[in-house]
Amino acid sequence: MTSAQRWTLAQRPAGVPAASDFALVAEPVETPGDGQILIGVSHISVDPGMRSRLSQDSYAPALQTGETIESAGVGAVLASRHPKFKGGDIVTGGFGWRTHLLSDGRGVMTLDPALFSGVVTPTAAIGVLGVPGLTAYFGLIDVGGAKAHQTLLVSSGAGPVGATAGQIGRILGMHVIGISTHTEKCGYMLSELGFDKAIRDARGSHLELSIRDAAPQGVDVYFDNVGGRTLDAAILNMKPHGRIVVSGQVSEYNRAEPRGIRHVSPFITKRLRMEGLVVYDFRARFAEAQAQLAQWIQDGRLSYREEIIDGFENAPAAFIGLFTGENFGRRLVRIA
Amino acid sequence: MTSAQRWTLAQRPAGVPAASDFALVAEPVETPGDGQILIGVSHISVDPGMRSRLSQDSYAPALQTGETIESAGVGAVLASRHPKFKGGDIVTGGFGWRTHLLSDGRGVMTLDPALFSGVVTPTAAIGVLGVPGLTAYFGLIDVGGAKAHQTLLVSSGAGPVGATAGQIGRILGMHVIGISTHTEKCGYMLSELGFDKAIRDARGSHLELSIRDAAPQGVDVYFDNVGGRTLDAAILNMKPHGRIVVSGQVSEYNRAEPRGIRHVSPFITKRLRMEGLVVYDFRARFAEAQAQLAQWIQDGRLSYREEIIDGFENAPAAFIGLFTGENFGRRLVRIA
Repeated sequence: MTSAQRWTLAQRPAGVPAASDFALVAEPVETPGDGQILIGVSHISVDPGMRSRLSQDSYAPALQTGETIESAGVGAVLASRHPKFKGGDIVTGGFGWRTHLLSDGRGVMTLDPALFSGVVTPTAAIGVLGVPGLTAYFGLIDVGGAKAHQTLLVSSGAGPVGATAGQIGRILGMHVIGISTHTEKCGYMLSELGFDKAIRDARGSHLELSIRDAAPQGVDVYFDNVGGRTLDAAILNMKPHGRIVVSGQVSEYNRAEPRGIRHVSPFITKRLRMEGLVVYDFRARFAEAQAQLAQWIQDGRLSYREEIIDGFENAPAAFIGLFTGENFGRRLVRIA
Repeated sequence: MTSAQRWTLAQRPAGVPAASDFALVAEPVETPGDGQILIGVSHISVDPGMRSRLSQDSYAPALQTGETIESAGVGAVLASRHPKFKGGDIVTGGFGWRTHLLSDGRGVMTLDPALFSGVVTPTAAIGVLGVPGLTAYFGLIDVGGAKAHQTLLVSSGAGPVGATAGQIGRILGMHVIGISTHTEKCGYMLSELGFDKAIRDARGSHLELSIRDAAPQGVDVYFDNVGGRTLDAAILNMKPHGRIVVSGQVSEYNRAEPRGIRHVSPFITKRLRMEGLVVYDFRARFAEAQAQLAQWIQDGRLSYREEIIDGFENAPAAFIGLFTGENFGRRLVRIA
């Protein structure tokens, strides 16, 4: 590769993002100066939660047109003039959609060989041990107050966050019910993830009743990755003192006007609590959580699935496909 | 009075309750047997929160047609064959809309002369020291996590719950902003209750912007008595880690289909928490809260306003008027 490439925001998406919302920029590969490293990126992530930042200020200011699309990444140090890094180090960080990154090392972490060994691959750093897995961990345990023998409902239960949340629930002794719109993802939740029940939310189905059938005693913790009508259906099935973890709202991200929820009165009658999280607030405890998650993987109690799309040029299409639910597992783009 | 009377549910209201939804029943006054007391009720409450129980199961099962409308009451023991009560005792409890009550004493409390003295009248037992005041106290302090120097927003800020919540906020050192649809209630919040700011939510006004003007730095705690578009406008003005206390949803009670809220995504980006309460969950701490509230009243730091409607026959109209906002203060019906 003679030049570096990066994907930028060409224009703000209206509704579901389109390929024309992104522009590919080619630039010379830079040479590190004193105190700098050059990273050759091997994998980048595509994340549904990034959608809102393409349009509006979120937990961070909105991306401006011409700026590089943000994402997590994994790569190798190609050249180093920084005392903390040496050539060949495998590193991770918020690299964005780019093939090469010149960095002063801030926000760049060298993968700990104690964690990334055996069945835990380097790409796990931006998946089950990265933002999706950590969101599941802190969302379920800290925000959701997960307790053994309680019932956990997870939407997008086969997605990177939901699959991890549901499996942690199982490890903690909860009764776990997953929701997915896809039949094969329901099978995956039951056979591979060990969920107790799976609900297929087919178009036109009456989700409120499906949840009631699966959890006739009600739901103690609802881990929400979807929002909208899915969240409403869950609210109507919560037990008294139930907790709702707002982790994602993927059904809302592409709407010009949000749908929201209809049922707030049950928050009084059932004493419900609903709380959102941004995982970076738990940064001080990332190492503790990553060690626990890696241990569960090594012990065969926590599985994760990656879907690798080959070719940097395919990043926008890989991202757009998230909103039709075509992805199955943590979707990453591998740079040739 | 030669006979006892009670108001019953004649039919389930559709939308705003109508006089024809209620039926007056006359019965002989009963004589207490061994272990019983006869209470002559002097005041009953009318409560917006009761609306939902006329139609559907709430925190308690829905009222059945023919059953007595439930409410708080204050009265005097007319005759006692119960060791804990004597004639002339002033008592309170969930008496319902009735002129006389034969009771075995369960759920009947004799007013503590240490609390109900001086400026604290017996009717305070079903107002500022009853469910509305206790809801404000536990909602703001326990559910809302009120802290000095933070900003508190209260909807229905001149109502019995909101006025108490806002004044407690002031006592705790919060910056307090009240919302009301009525100009004179805004004046009351500023001059009598000591709120820092009042927002008049006129028909057609842009409440989101009005809140932004009043709280440019954002809201830490929103104490919600209204729901719907008021709640949405508050959500858009919450600070990061803001807390929403769902105390009442008066804008929803008469709707066939609830409106709900549109904005759930800010729960993630701003890490918001929304939680409802039923005050009876705090029963073990009622005495502590009542002593504190009574002390604040005696010290002149907490004021309350009652609106007494004369005549038992006027109970349904007094209740119906709550939903047009015609009441000003805690509305009670005095039995002749």
